[in-house]
Amino acid sequence: MARAHSNIALVKYWGKRDAALNTPAVGSISVTLDALYTDTRVTFLSGLVADEFWLAGCRNPVTRISHVLDLVRGHAASMGLPAAGLNAIVTSTNNFPTGAGLASSASGFAALAVAAAGAAGLALNGRELSILARHGSGSAARSIFGGFAEMHAGTAVDGSDAYAEELLDRGAWPLAVVVAITEHGEKSINSTVGMNESKATSPFYGAWLDSADDDLADMRAAIRDRDFARLGELSEYNCLKLHSLMLTTRPALIYWNAATVAAMHAVQALRARGVPAYFTIDAGPQVKVLCLPGDAATVQRAMALVPGVHEARISGLGPAAHRLE
Amino acid sequence: MARAHSNIALVKYWGKRDAALNTPAVGSISVTLDALYTDTRVTFLSGLVADEFWLAGCRNPVTRISHVLDLVRGHAASMGLPAAGLNAIVTSTNNFPTGAGLASSASGFAALAVAAAGAAGLALNGRELSILARHGSGSAARSIFGGFAEMHAGTAVDGSDAYAEELLDRGAWPLAVVVAITEHGEKSINSTVGMNESKATSPFYGAWLDSADDDLADMRAAIRDRDFARLGELSEYNCLKLHSLMLTTRPALIYWNAATVAAMHAVQALRARGVPAYFTIDAGPQVKVLCLPGDAATVQRAMALVPGVHEARISGLGPAAHRLE
Repeated sequence: MARAHSNIALVKYWGKRDAALNTPAVGSISVTLDALYTDTRVTFLSGLVADEFWLAGCRNPVTRISHVLDLVRGHAASMGLPAAGLNAIVTSTNNFPTGAGLASSASGFAALAVAAAGAAGLALNGRELSILARHGSGSAARSIFGGFAEMHAGTAVDGSDAYAEELLDRGAWPLAVVVAITEHGEKSINSTVGMNESKATSPFYGAWLDSADDDLADMRAAIRDRDFARLGELSEYNCLKLHSLMLTTRPALIYWNAATVAAMHAVQALRARGVPAYFTIDAGPQVKVLCLPGDAATVQRAMALVPGVHEARISGLGPAAHRLE
Repeated sequence: MARAHSNIALVKYWGKRDAALNTPAVGSISVTLDALYTDTRVTFLSGLVADEFWLAGCRNPVTRISHVLDLVRGHAASMGLPAAGLNAIVTSTNNFPTGAGLASSASGFAALAVAAAGAAGLALNGRELSILARHGSGSAARSIFGGFAEMHAGTAVDGSDAYAEELLDRGAWPLAVVVAITEHGEKSINSTVGMNESKATSPFYGAWLDSADDDLADMRAAIRDRDFARLGELSEYNCLKLHSLMLTTRPALIYWNAATVAAMHAVQALRARGVPAYFTIDAGPQVKVLCLPGDAATVQRAMALVPGVHEARISGLGPAAHRLE
């Protein structure tokens, strides 16, 4: 059994460099969230006719799961381990809504990578686990690490330099994130499909790629200097840039609902009355508010009062993905 | 007294080529709206120490008004007309909320241009009136004309080729626009200030300029072919492109509120059930829905049901600006 935590990108990833290797077109920087996690168990078994994936007690398609398991079986074969020839049962649970823009695929594939490697008897390091998780979901590469993590876009044709690493331990700069849930349903457009459409149709895609390195450098500096206002302003800007890319995709990717926008204005209103709080939003309608731990309760109350916000959950920064047994 | 109607750009203008001449960085295409208009009277008087501007009975600043009046006085001087040496009283009323993203400056400066030229005894043609109105507000250049109008960005250093002209008479293709009002207050950021900030800070500004001509050509073709689906889809896309440019301005220009986004989704839901309706939104929170006249009542009802929409008004396409006496 392994547990991996969800993460929220402060500098976002959207667009793929290589679809088969699932390498990103731009680097990204995230914080891992203590309050949102996936627990996953992988059991390699003889006599199993195919891989099985059970999520919250329901059987689910295995396509992307088996792709990651195949890579684990390949590693196992090179080490002469028995898992090489076996199918697996994967059971998984999230402690938060699945597929609604809360990065369940990030925590899910990071937990899968750690659990599958462990079950196969492989001793992979963080970089290897990060690359393994990336094959399932680009953002999962970051959830291998705790605190602040940076994913490198890389340039190698085999994807070997497209991995995440820890930028800063969560103990070195405690921050809080208030997750405001505006919708429990699954999002309408899968991220991979959306990314391909943005690349093919948005007139802003080129500028999105070209401006990514500046944002990454600014964010690294903000983290290095523990400059919360700079981190927050840049996070909001980069989030709006991502959504602008999505909005100019044809047909448009409109992930916001009324409550999303109301929450954005509520965050700006908090700032106007002196509470340093900044929003960020992924490919879904939920709003995550970055704040200092001492302001988290104030921010939670403000978010809970926004019409259409069902729940506002406080999270600290989370640990690296790890085995539970 | 002159009356000019508001207009809504289907291909939007944002960004200036020359600030002093108020020439736009991109061309634009609009429809003039029958239901929203400004009535303006200009009276040149001897013994008046300065220009005066009264809007809805309240005295207002004259800076931009006097700039247009100065140009009229210049024309009058070259013709030897007495208005050349006189200040003026300008009285104006809008039949809709002012400064809230309903293009009151478009109808206002178009009405001013027609009324002032008339009061001074000048016989200006449509192109000359359009250039005169442009000096007050870029979008006003289009409100000189009825039906479908196109504004040319121009290239001349004196701004002489930056004018609008009629593309199609309103009788040739009757369309309806449902104006959903979500907020009666004035917008927080003046458009000229916002445009300058976008030019200075948005990473997407270059691509916004580069992609404008394609949208203009597509929209001309849609109007020529009376292809409503093409006109509507392109209007939504171009609107989202404008707002993406605004959202990526630093600090961000977020003109939408919760009801704006709810109305956008309601329009898409109308389409999903077979009603061809498309939204467009200017620099404010109001949503304008393009539809066929036979669907206008259905669209109006759907908009009136959106939480946060105070009023939904149906408009046909309007006539050119004209004198009332």
